[in-house]
Amino acid sequence: MSAPCNCKHAEATTAVDGSLQALSPELQKEFSDPSHPANLICELCRLFYDNNWVTGTGGGISIRDVDGADPNLVYIAPSGVQKERIRPWEMFLVELPDEKLLRSPNDVPEELTKKYKYKPSACTPLFMSCYTMRDAGACIHTHSQSAVMVTLLFENQKQFEISHIEQIKALPKLKYNEDSGKVEKIGSLDYFDTLVIPIIENTPHEEDLTDSLQEAIRNYPGTSAVLVRRHGIYVWGETVWKAKVYNEAIDYLLELAVKMHQAGVPLVRS
Amino acid sequence: MSAPCNCKHAEATTAVDGSLQALSPELQKEFSDPSHPANLICELCRLFYDNNWVTGTGGGISIRDVDGADPNLVYIAPSGVQKERIRPWEMFLVELPDEKLLRSPNDVPEELTKKYKYKPSACTPLFMSCYTMRDAGACIHTHSQSAVMVTLLFENQKQFEISHIEQIKALPKLKYNEDSGKVEKIGSLDYFDTLVIPIIENTPHEEDLTDSLQEAIRNYPGTSAVLVRRHGIYVWGETVWKAKVYNEAIDYLLELAVKMHQAGVPLVRS
Amino acid sequence: MSAPCNCKHAEATTAVDGSLQALSPELQKEFSDPSHPANLICELCRLFYDNNWVTGTGGGISIRDVDGADPNLVYIAPSGVQKERIRPWEMFLVELPDEKLLRSPNDVPEELTKKYKYKPSACTPLFMSCYTMRDAGACIHTHSQSAVMVTLLFENQKQFEISHIEQIKALPKLKYNEDSGKVEKIGSLDYFDTLVIPIIENTPHEEDLTDSLQEAIRNYPGTSAVLVRRHGIYVWGETVWKAKVYNEAIDYLLELAVKMHQAGVPLVRS
Amino acid sequence: MSAPCNCKHAEATTAVDGSLQALSPELQKEFSDPSHPANLICELCRLFYDNNWVTGTGGGISIRDVDGADPNLVYIAPSGVQKERIRPWEMFLVELPDEKLLRSPNDVPEELTKKYKYKPSACTPLFMSCYTMRDAGACIHTHSQSAVMVTLLFENQKQFEISHIEQIKALPKLKYNEDSGKVEKIGSLDYFDTLVIPIIENTPHEEDLTDSLQEAIRNYPGTSAVLVRRHGIYVWGETVWKAKVYNEAIDYLLELAVKMHQAGVPLVRS
Repeated sequence: MSAPCNCKHAEATTAVDGSLQALSPELQKEFSDPSHPANLICELCRLFYDNNWVTGTGGGISIRDVDGADPNLVYIAPSGVQKERIRPWEMFLVELPDEKLLRSPNDVPEELTKKYKYKPSACTPLFMSCYTMRDAGACIHTHSQSAVMVTLLFENQKQFEISHIEQIKALPKLKYNEDSGKVEKIGSLDYFDTLVIPIIENTPHEEDLTDSLQEAIRNYPGTSAVLVRRHGIYVWGETVWKAKVYNEAIDYLLELAVKMHQAGVPLVRS
Repeated sequence: MSAPCNCKHAEATTAVDGSLQALSPELQKEFSDPSHPANLICELCRLFYDNNWVTGTGGGISIRDVDGADPNLVYIAPSGVQKERIRPWEMFLVELPDEKLLRSPNDVPEELTKKYKYKPSACTPLFMSCYTMRDAGACIHTHSQSAVMVTLLFENQKQFEISHIEQIKALPKLKYNEDSGKVEKIGSLDYFDTLVIPIIENTPHEEDLTDSLQEAIRNYPGTSAVLVRRHGIYVWGETVWKAKVYNEAIDYLLELAVKMHQAGVPLVRS
Repeated sequence: MSAPCNCKHAEATTAVDGSLQALSPELQKEFSDPSHPANLICELCRLFYDNNWVTGTGGGISIRDVDGADPNLVYIAPSGVQKERIRPWEMFLVELPDEKLLRSPNDVPEELTKKYKYKPSACTPLFMSCYTMRDAGACIHTHSQSAVMVTLLFENQKQFEISHIEQIKALPKLKYNEDSGKVEKIGSLDYFDTLVIPIIENTPHEEDLTDSLQEAIRNYPGTSAVLVRRHGIYVWGETVWKAKVYNEAIDYLLELAVKMHQAGVPLVRS
Repeated sequence: MSAPCNCKHAEATTAVDGSLQALSPELQKEFSDPSHPANLICELCRLFYDNNWVTGTGGGISIRDVDGADPNLVYIAPSGVQKERIRPWEMFLVELPDEKLLRSPNDVPEELTKKYKYKPSACTPLFMSCYTMRDAGACIHTHSQSAVMVTLLFENQKQFEISHIEQIKALPKLKYNEDSGKVEKIGSLDYFDTLVIPIIENTPHEEDLTDSLQEAIRNYPGTSAVLVRRHGIYVWGETVWKAKVYNEAIDYLLELAVKMHQAGVPLVRS
């Protein structure tokens, strides 16, 4: 179970401000809740932008409404926009398992879209893989420089490994349950565990990563993330807050790994 | 076409606050729109300052009002002022093609100017080159340390090259159209494309860079930026938001390139 | 004596906002004071998060109410939550010397806890050691990357040493008083003093650090901090503001030490 | 002449908020002006804290009221307090040339001081040297890590030198006028000028730096700053905004110099 997030979310995401007045009263009401998934996407994208993870339209995020009335609802940020400036009505809303499109920013009044034709993030099939294969509640994709550097420093390796760093304990210990056929969380990694994250090769088109990402998810039942060489990382979790925490902990470890490598300190202690 | 920017712009730029009350009612009304080019210059300069790109009065920005009634109107930040603290009335306004001066901060009540004699940014002829040679909608000039470092690490090279990094895809693919005689955007760079940015040598006076910048723009029809050795970078785009996104993506790549070079990773994969 | 903190604390911590309305009127009133220890924990955790010290639920802080009516009251942040998002009612409150539990976030209305079962920070026995052995007013635990790096760069050393850096003067000069059997502050370190911080080895469970932390505190009567290898640092002070200042000064020195080591500059001048 | 600063200063410094109500109506009125030197000190200290320049009570700033009714009035931040949290009434006010004490935070109601005994910054005699020897309008002292690193990387050098970097042009060109016996600003440094900043050796007590700082100011009539080995830097300017800009430009150059040195790029081009 995940700790509640009781903080007062950044005000910019919560207000029914002037720019939302063109929306239907129903949507205005919906977006007046700061913990609405569409608002959380906006809030987290601003945070990720400040960390240099989603600069220049890079990166993306999707949230499945696991705490809402229908946990099959999935919110997806649009493609090719400035992530730190998106607004709640710009999300695509689809319903699992067949990804039926329920809502599109292209249906919003032109006063807001200015006739821009939105497309869902190119990461969409990758996000969906995390939802269907791992029952994830949210999936984060960043272009973190530490992630990219790690894939370059270990260019011939198929996985990233680090051990004996306290921050590893922030990540979940996962186990494949043969009965249910599902990967289940059985606790947290221990200090002496080796964190292993698979690295897949980048492809010209983001959607073409789907097969190798799915293969990595199958081959690494213990992982909560997949690194993409020369590109970035995908991280998921049971809820949006777990995904955020895992992503922060992994990025901390990747940043530290680059410094350790530079200083000649081995990443795994024998 | 560019995605709309629907975010609520930083409040400091939008308010008709006390410091604007000395302006004419017309100007006050004009500057009450947060997406007015003069307000966007203020907002972006604060952002660039936070990134250490325009510290100590360095750097500059100019916006052409491509979405406004007269796309020949060009707003230019003044020279030698703290970029993160400029206010909308401090901009120069000129009209293309002959750069006729329509408005000057020196015409504003002394209550605001405190008799300071404003001059347009020394970058002005360089900005104008981007408008006339490339039909740009905005042009950004920064003193980014990553930009300067790259020109120092490759001191004998006339261009910067990097390939096979996902973030490259945020940049436009440009092509010279022989019929129109213009450089046109035909899409985005691909992952396996090599991003090439020309490097010109610095000159004692910024305006003396004009000839070599224009030559670089002519010789590199595929570029959206020009590096200036030991100085910084000029980046432009079809709109202010495109210019911002290109600048962010390029700076991400320059920062990564410095790290790759330091780690002995080649910037271009053969 | 410590300088007063007269700043206006970050507004998010002070307001009796909507999210607090579910609390009893007494708690609402108590938390309306921005300098209440529970509010200061929230404020400082946000600051530490911005410094990358408590990312991904890592780190922690505890304050003893030395300026309040009962200096035996100790506030402790909960375990495993996002530190930058905690709210004042999420703290545990215990009374020294026998650590009697006076208040728990688990007693707060479910509307706020959402049935999450809170546990006090795993750092609790370590915090208590600082209170009982050193009469501390607050204790800070971070996963600072500079702290971790220093323990890795000097992996065979049992202590970290640095001398002849001005910032050392921000730290207290402590002396063991044989009469009182207590460590007392007798001034500040001098520029030419060597700052010495013991390094203890990490353990799988945080609470198992207690013995070695207490041993380090006994063996190093002059220290205000203990480094934990591959983990982070514990820093304490007479008041929360002193602890904050010491932590900042030490982290500055650790960050500088990493740079000095990388540049081949000895940390201690002979 | 200096450009006006028309920005809306950070609100926290300007408001006659609750914490000021204990002051006399005269002081409340005085501090209601956001451009009052005492407020500017608060604002700049917060900015410097964010840059890691005045962390842990380190560093300081003083402003001479050159734009006010009496340019002999000098505001000085207190010693040993958290610089990012000071409030306008915590400043000492003295009058040149004999440094007569006009106002002390120790005269403020105990409700605010909480009986803390304030002392003026230990930098005071150094600030005064800049006022009397150079007619400065403000003086900034930071513990910038780039400043400290430069003095360590060039430990045997008595001065720091860098040339052929555009940012150098943000600094003033100064010349000793034999007639007036004063150092006068005759323009800005050129791109091909070598910026030279003297480095003095640190002393156990900050005030003991006064002689060597004065000697450096005499021996380097062209400098606007003095580096203190293993300590930090002093920077001054004609006004507070000039001092801020010079400090930013110099710190940019020091940061770049550390990177250049690390990459084996000479700081001065022959």
